[in-house]
Amino acid sequence: MTQQLHVDRNDPWVKKVLVQMPVPTLKDNTADADRLRRAATKAIGDSNLSIPYSLLKDIPKRLRELNYNCEVAAYEDDTGWTLIDIFPPRDPDTIYGIAMDLGSSTIVTRLVNLHNGETVKETSFHNPQVKVGADILTRIHYCSQPGGLEQLKEMLLSEINKRITGMCKEVGLGRNEIVAFCAAGNTTMTHFFLGLDPYWICREPYIPVVNRPEIITSKDIGLCINERAPVLVLPNVGSYFGGDLIAGILASGMNHMDEVCLLVDVGTNAEVVLGNQDWLMGCAGAAGPALEGGVASMGMMAGPGVIDRVWIDPETREIEYHTIDDLPPVGICGSGLIDLVAQLYLWGLIDLRGKFVPQKCGKRLIEIDGIKHLVVVPADQSGTGQPLTLSQPDIDSLIRSKAAMYTILTTITKTVELSLNDISRFFIAGTFGSYIDPRSAIVLGMIPDLPLETFVPLGNTSLQGATLALISRQARKECLEIRDKITYLELNVNQEFMNLFSAAKFIPHTDKTLFPSVKQIES
Amino acid sequence: MTQQLHVDRNDPWVKKVLVQMPVPTLKDNTADADRLRRAATKAIGDSNLSIPYSLLKDIPKRLRELNYNCEVAAYEDDTGWTLIDIFPPRDPDTIYGIAMDLGSSTIVTRLVNLHNGETVKETSFHNPQVKVGADILTRIHYCSQPGGLEQLKEMLLSEINKRITGMCKEVGLGRNEIVAFCAAGNTTMTHFFLGLDPYWICREPYIPVVNRPEIITSKDIGLCINERAPVLVLPNVGSYFGGDLIAGILASGMNHMDEVCLLVDVGTNAEVVLGNQDWLMGCAGAAGPALEGGVASMGMMAGPGVIDRVWIDPETREIEYHTIDDLPPVGICGSGLIDLVAQLYLWGLIDLRGKFVPQKCGKRLIEIDGIKHLVVVPADQSGTGQPLTLSQPDIDSLIRSKAAMYTILTTITKTVELSLNDISRFFIAGTFGSYIDPRSAIVLGMIPDLPLETFVPLGNTSLQGATLALISRQARKECLEIRDKITYLELNVNQEFMNLFSAAKFIPHTDKTLFPSVKQIES
Repeated sequence: MTQQLHVDRNDPWVKKVLVQMPVPTLKDNTADADRLRRAATKAIGDSNLSIPYSLLKDIPKRLRELNYNCEVAAYEDDTGWTLIDIFPPRDPDTIYGIAMDLGSSTIVTRLVNLHNGETVKETSFHNPQVKVGADILTRIHYCSQPGGLEQLKEMLLSEINKRITGMCKEVGLGRNEIVAFCAAGNTTMTHFFLGLDPYWICREPYIPVVNRPEIITSKDIGLCINERAPVLVLPNVGSYFGGDLIAGILASGMNHMDEVCLLVDVGTNAEVVLGNQDWLMGCAGAAGPALEGGVASMGMMAGPGVIDRVWIDPETREIEYHTIDDLPPVGICGSGLIDLVAQLYLWGLIDLRGKFVPQKCGKRLIEIDGIKHLVVVPADQSGTGQPLTLSQPDIDSLIRSKAAMYTILTTITKTVELSLNDISRFFIAGTFGSYIDPRSAIVLGMIPDLPLETFVPLGNTSLQGATLALISRQARKECLEIRDKITYLELNVNQEFMNLFSAAKFIPHTDKTLFPSVKQIES
Repeated sequence: MTQQLHVDRNDPWVKKVLVQMPVPTLKDNTADADRLRRAATKAIGDSNLSIPYSLLKDIPKRLRELNYNCEVAAYEDDTGWTLIDIFPPRDPDTIYGIAMDLGSSTIVTRLVNLHNGETVKETSFHNPQVKVGADILTRIHYCSQPGGLEQLKEMLLSEINKRITGMCKEVGLGRNEIVAFCAAGNTTMTHFFLGLDPYWICREPYIPVVNRPEIITSKDIGLCINERAPVLVLPNVGSYFGGDLIAGILASGMNHMDEVCLLVDVGTNAEVVLGNQDWLMGCAGAAGPALEGGVASMGMMAGPGVIDRVWIDPETREIEYHTIDDLPPVGICGSGLIDLVAQLYLWGLIDLRGKFVPQKCGKRLIEIDGIKHLVVVPADQSGTGQPLTLSQPDIDSLIRSKAAMYTILTTITKTVELSLNDISRFFIAGTFGSYIDPRSAIVLGMIPDLPLETFVPLGNTSLQGATLALISRQARKECLEIRDKITYLELNVNQEFMNLFSAAKFIPHTDKTLFPSVKQIES
């Protein structure tokens, strides 16, 4: 899924080249740094090559040790090329960088060979800031305490450094050999990463410190890679539309397509981009955490033993399921929850308002503290020793979330005077999104009733986009172009929005003609 | 003397501009840094404006304090403009920088108003590295000890910082208000200043670390001015032709002239540049310290009570003199020594080989430890209570120095197939040089017998050139052009050179036809 034809990988902005210099003589007494600059400029093929001061000091010793025959790594920014480091001549094709998806809950770092774009190693871990606050607003408020920002930044950096160091050790690379870094994340997370105060992000009129961070060096923020490695942080459109989405657009390639495409990143926020090569419109709205499986009593993040697929056996009418790693079930993740509720609806166990139908549920329906629960997995089959149940409030919450999602999709499409049927490709971003069965999501009325081939799960597009921007000059440039192109739609929760939302709170929708395929199954 | 018509002062590379931004709103929610970049770019009039990471962090707070109405200082290098700092809106015309002549014995720092080029304050002090070694070679060798380079750099920087802080205090400026720095010095001194190891400078094939230092920030080397202020160190041609001479050429303007000009910086080394707008040739040769007044038994640097002018009264035949500050004499400086020896020759007290003529010297001639001395100032008139005397070896040393100087001038002129008479302007650089009476120097045969109006004393051209490069983009650019234009003439002390040298060891010269004006006085 990381293969994107529209990005030219043979156009790196971080390069390693072989540089051979004539040894100084009385007749050719150019200084060491100027000698290196002259030869490296030629090897890189550019007229403006800068040598950082921290490297300058070491040049005479390094060049003499290598007998004026070396490899140099360099990067290009708006101002020209800058040397990163000098290496013994070995193999300019082995040059490494790190791409990072800087999620507020999960962070993924990927060690990439910049020469061919291949992933050497990848590691995913919880954002350590969750200790301070699971939601980002708590963390922003935490920054108002003295030293709070520094503490949050330090938490983040020390964990990232630990993971990077671990990856390097596993593949036998020294920190100096990692010569580039690219991070994609939401606006607040990139502020934490850069040590910038997000105070004004959550306060009207919601102003970030920076939209387009310039390239800095790893030393500036304390990343444990080559101290002069460039660190690229993808730009944001504003406080609520971050570099992770810019990365997503880049990874989807929708900004190069003729047809109208839609990109949805499903999470606590439903982040949506509509457009094509000519225009892009984005918006983000609260969808509620139900879609991530974070709310239901049995809900949890994907992991071993978590139910990710559900179906009802037509013969036995039993709830069947699949768990990750085929372990006894311990909970259900978002994709499983969507399957489950869709199946319950199709088999009549819930009605179009999502309410349990007691005569269909039978003895599966129990009451706990006066609240109706459906036993999905009896205690004797569960991995926890407890029954796994789905409550009426769980379903209500999912329905609100799916209604919010559908309303947002309807609103953004209407804003540009299109209908949902005009969407040629429906990209689903996010690791979680990849597991959703579009069929189930359509049954619930969460996504429009489009031909199944329209839906393209893309996986972690934030990481993919960061990887592309890391290895390709054109991709890096495109991030800024995408940013500048996006029209951000401020969602006004007005009467019209509320009307749409109310209509979407049915399964699949009040207007069943919008979901002909669902009507067909039901009949 | 600092007025140079050929440099456009209205073309600064360090600027302060007023920047007024619209306050952010929901409709205009551009990030603070991007808002500042947009407005400052417009005010400066350039398309590529970079905000350093260290400034980025403070931007939201600073802009809000100033209600988005501020002054910004920025500088331009090869890569575009970079912000230095944000100030309250006051007066963009008050913008300060420091120019420095980084001499191996004396350092001069000048506080300059960058807007109009005016000197606000100037201070001159001994190079503290003299404690480690008066001559530069001793200091280079000292760097081979562990920590030696760091120690020499620290010595230098702490003294410079002390002086800068003192100047700022006197005129009521904070360190942050000093937003630019330019240093001119010989190649080794600039290496010390930049913390670069000069190890290879004095070892064949004499390779500096860098010829054209890039602009760094004051923080990089620990200068006590605005931490993001650009520090420009003038380029060198090689180990023995430094930025002080590039500054000299710039200050003289000879690189803009039609006629053939000669620039001489008289010191321990005779540094000579010949040329005009089309070509430049430079060379440096040991002239011996005699010319600086550093060797003669009564010789010393210019200072209170030091004899700087000498003449022999035609009536009394007494040696008359002038001392600095009109104090009782304590010694003699270079210009005084040249006057003295010229007068002794003209009045027949020494012969054309510089040897004392006893019958002319009379009882002024005494012997100390078997060496002939001429009493210049008797003990009862001297400020030291001791007689001030000039010994035969003092004169011999001066004659070797002047012969070396004349030989170097002859050699460089012959190399380009010109004669000394082709020189239209003879610029004398250096504070010491300004005090030399060209008449006396001609009598000695130290400089060619040209019309007196040919000689132009320029004073401290290293400081003047540094000042010009500090305030003018064109001047900064010219330093590199001058550097690239210079052909460095390696002086071969071969038989021909030795022949010329021998011929020049007479007063004024073996070939008296070269000095018609002297012949005329004598006759």
